[in-house]
Amino acid sequence: MAAGINPIIILVRPQLPENVGAVARAMANFGLETLRLVEPLSDPLDPKALATSAGADLVLTKAEQFSSLKEAISDLTHVYGTCATERDMVKNYLPLRSAISEISESSSPQKVGIAFGPERTGLSNDDFALCRSIIRIPVCTDFSSLNLAQAVVLVAYEFFQSHQTPVGNFHIGETQLASRGQVHHFLADLETILDEKKFWRINHKKAIMWRNLQNIFTRMDLTEQEVRTLQGMIRSLYSR
Amino acid sequence: MAAGINPIIILVRPQLPENVGAVARAMANFGLETLRLVEPLSDPLDPKALATSAGADLVLTKAEQFSSLKEAISDLTHVYGTCATERDMVKNYLPLRSAISEISESSSPQKVGIAFGPERTGLSNDDFALCRSIIRIPVCTDFSSLNLAQAVVLVAYEFFQSHQTPVGNFHIGETQLASRGQVHHFLADLETILDEKKFWRINHKKAIMWRNLQNIFTRMDLTEQEVRTLQGMIRSLYSR
Repeated sequence: MAAGINPIIILVRPQLPENVGAVARAMANFGLETLRLVEPLSDPLDPKALATSAGADLVLTKAEQFSSLKEAISDLTHVYGTCATERDMVKNYLPLRSAISEISESSSPQKVGIAFGPERTGLSNDDFALCRSIIRIPVCTDFSSLNLAQAVVLVAYEFFQSHQTPVGNFHIGETQLASRGQVHHFLADLETILDEKKFWRINHKKAIMWRNLQNIFTRMDLTEQEVRTLQGMIRSLYSR
Repeated sequence: MAAGINPIIILVRPQLPENVGAVARAMANFGLETLRLVEPLSDPLDPKALATSAGADLVLTKAEQFSSLKEAISDLTHVYGTCATERDMVKNYLPLRSAISEISESSSPQKVGIAFGPERTGLSNDDFALCRSIIRIPVCTDFSSLNLAQAVVLVAYEFFQSHQTPVGNFHIGETQLASRGQVHHFLADLETILDEKKFWRINHKKAIMWRNLQNIFTRMDLTEQEVRTLQGMIRSLYSR
């Protein structure tokens, strides 16, 4: 991502309108404009949200709503989840500052989303499975419950800081990175085929096995060509 | 200030108890314990403050009250004010990150206070006059009105960061990263199966297609469990 390009902030199932408004304000403070809401419990233009946005109405007015995280990220190239404490899951965890450097220093064209979970629980493991890596916001282990808007302001601030420092260069050539939609299309195909093949054997194990498989493919930087290659490979194996 | 020693947060004439509580929570998130209130408009144990502190009651209970900034800082060695936009005043302005480095890197014994002004106006010029330097929190000039607790969380976060060197962490739970040998064994299996399935169709294209496929799997950090999962998947697809 070139310096100056800004990530999309995605709130997954936010509970309190006050927090959604405070998130909009925090975004505006650091020049972020695009907010996506997945199954929000209240309207983005709820009076309480407008009050805490303190004038950042435009972010709320333009906020788009989605019925699933998958849908909300289908046009993005990279999606990062956020957490304050790590889960027991095979996943790449990056401390906040390193994560933002990584994103900011890539010069390939990317459309980046940063997802934040509901206030009480954070992102679910299924949400995590859709994320390339998890940004760990380093907090004091004794008191790790971070307010949603506080989490967003720290991420927004680090992006803003990264725009003011010279960036490195990462060459990806002429290939395009696959969008999340293309990756999900491949994964849907794979799941159908594995269902038909009764790959899961013990049915109640499917959930965890499938999440593990998704985690393998979502943490990679796949190009469009590579997604086509994998899809071709899977179909070829499946054919009789 | 030696690494590990933490600054005192001073709120000057804070207006809203919700913000005082949110400040306490933000402080606890980053291991700061000492809060001083100068002429607060409400009691630190106001129910609204307790609610937004989300469990950081101890910070509120221990908060000391003062009738002037001068009195509140009399035992401190260094006091820094904060602002989002610079005033027309002869003063040393330091961007947030540099200020925290400066403070953290000093090895002389210091007792440092960071002062934050009222929500509506920020610190007055008289308050500024009591401060050694002013920490400027870099925000977007188009929308520079930063919430009080957001300003505190950014300062607390930068102090917390200065105490530690961030390290990346690829969480793999109890499983081990696969050896190259295990990955190659999986790839050899895959190649045999794709050969049998005549995946390459045009034979002279095999070399480049196979290199592409290998590239996908070799640039990942696969765990042993993930290699077994992928191998199981490939064999399952192949089976009749």
